[in-house]
Amino acid sequence: MEYPKEAINSVKRHRERGDYSLDTIHGIIQESQLVHVSFIDPKSPFPVVLPMIGTMGSFTDQTASLGDPLDLYLHGYVSHRIMNLSRADSSDEGMPVTVAASHVDGLVLALSAFSHSYNYRSATLFGHATVVEDEAEKLYAMELITNKVVPGRWDHTRLPLTKTEIKSTGILRVKVASGSAKIRDAEPKDERVDMKNEEALDSVWTGVVPIWTAVGEPVPSSYNRVVDVPTHVTQHVQELNATNRRRVEKSHAGK
Amino acid sequence: MEYPKEAINSVKRHRERGDYSLDTIHGIIQESQLVHVSFIDPKSPFPVVLPMIGTMGSFTDQTASLGDPLDLYLHGYVSHRIMNLSRADSSDEGMPVTVAASHVDGLVLALSAFSHSYNYRSATLFGHATVVEDEAEKLYAMELITNKVVPGRWDHTRLPLTKTEIKSTGILRVKVASGSAKIRDAEPKDERVDMKNEEALDSVWTGVVPIWTAVGEPVPSSYNRVVDVPTHVTQHVQELNATNRRRVEKSHAGK
Repeated sequence: MEYPKEAINSVKRHRERGDYSLDTIHGIIQESQLVHVSFIDPKSPFPVVLPMIGTMGSFTDQTASLGDPLDLYLHGYVSHRIMNLSRADSSDEGMPVTVAASHVDGLVLALSAFSHSYNYRSATLFGHATVVEDEAEKLYAMELITNKVVPGRWDHTRLPLTKTEIKSTGILRVKVASGSAKIRDAEPKDERVDMKNEEALDSVWTGVVPIWTAVGEPVPSSYNRVVDVPTHVTQHVQELNATNRRRVEKSHAGK
Repeated sequence: MEYPKEAINSVKRHRERGDYSLDTIHGIIQESQLVHVSFIDPKSPFPVVLPMIGTMGSFTDQTASLGDPLDLYLHGYVSHRIMNLSRADSSDEGMPVTVAASHVDGLVLALSAFSHSYNYRSATLFGHATVVEDEAEKLYAMELITNKVVPGRWDHTRLPLTKTEIKSTGILRVKVASGSAKIRDAEPKDERVDMKNEEALDSVWTGVVPIWTAVGEPVPSSYNRVVDVPTHVTQHVQELNATNRRRVEKSHAGK
């Protein structure tokens, strides 16, 4: 399943790096600890950009997978500018937002400075944001967002949420209108003329320096009383490290 | 030196996390492999957001340090939408852009789902972008950007740049109008009522899971002929790993 290629989401430069599949795009958003949410404030020439926690989900089809049509849930505070603007938006559709997430996977060092690049995965979603008012949907999104930070965390926290907690948490639902991803995952690529330049080939090291997100040993708080770090936390640390390293190792093998 | 606190850049939620010093803000941008550049396309309700390589610099005062007033140089392609829009901008000032960079340093796990958080450093710059046409300034920025990817890299590439390379590289200079940073670097903080909840304290593990950017062994390209990875590359790998780990270890010690 793909987002239709339209003017707004088409990758123009390096078209071959474009990817429109829901699975890829939603996956990149899902793997990002933070997304950058951008929207227009009619009173300012500068777009507002906020780092927020975002997670893909579907309240109406909770068994949907990453490749299915999904909404994006964003976490914020009710007093927040984005919440106010979204509430003030007179259209039924919601406030237009652009959501971006990017991961750098490698520094790509070529013969010429010009051909230097990154290996990266970046995704953009365009959609309309509205404030979630329904309590059941709000709780669904809060659980989803908490479990995005550490899978299974929700059930290991002090529950149930208090009325105040629910009231003072703001959740935005973004109905996705369009999206795209752009991915580079390859060795350096120099221009033909440089590939025949013996002096350059003999003197300039070319290759990829892999980069990934590493996760460390959990550090207990000053008021923590639970001696052993629980399994849902240690498992997440192991899995994140393994996944991130595997991607890096796989991506540069034999390319 | 600080950016003046105005309506546009004031941190509203968690004011105590706001930081307006040029040194801090420029430093966060500088440590980001990518920044997200957002601007308004008059033909679309959605802001455009592009991941780009950005680096702080000053062509007129090349000895300036991170705490001094600086421009932001962005790397792109001349055919790029941002370049065209910036060229088409009729004002002398340039096209308004918002530039954001965020680093997650830790997953902050509290007693209540509500009090979960991240440790993070995020920075936003507001400014006006114009295309750099002067060849000397363009070369200055290209060297700066290449050396941002790996310090000292420029002098280890095939030089000089060809006329075509200079012509087909687009550089934007953003004159910074305002900026702010927001930083959380602490252990979890639960509400007073939870801190008295013996059952929660006895059953919920609380603490921080550190996260940082790790850099791996350089992987040579299929056409690389230089057997030993050069010092400027190995040094960068070591320094990035050391700096990133040190920050994480320092930040959670005794908090």
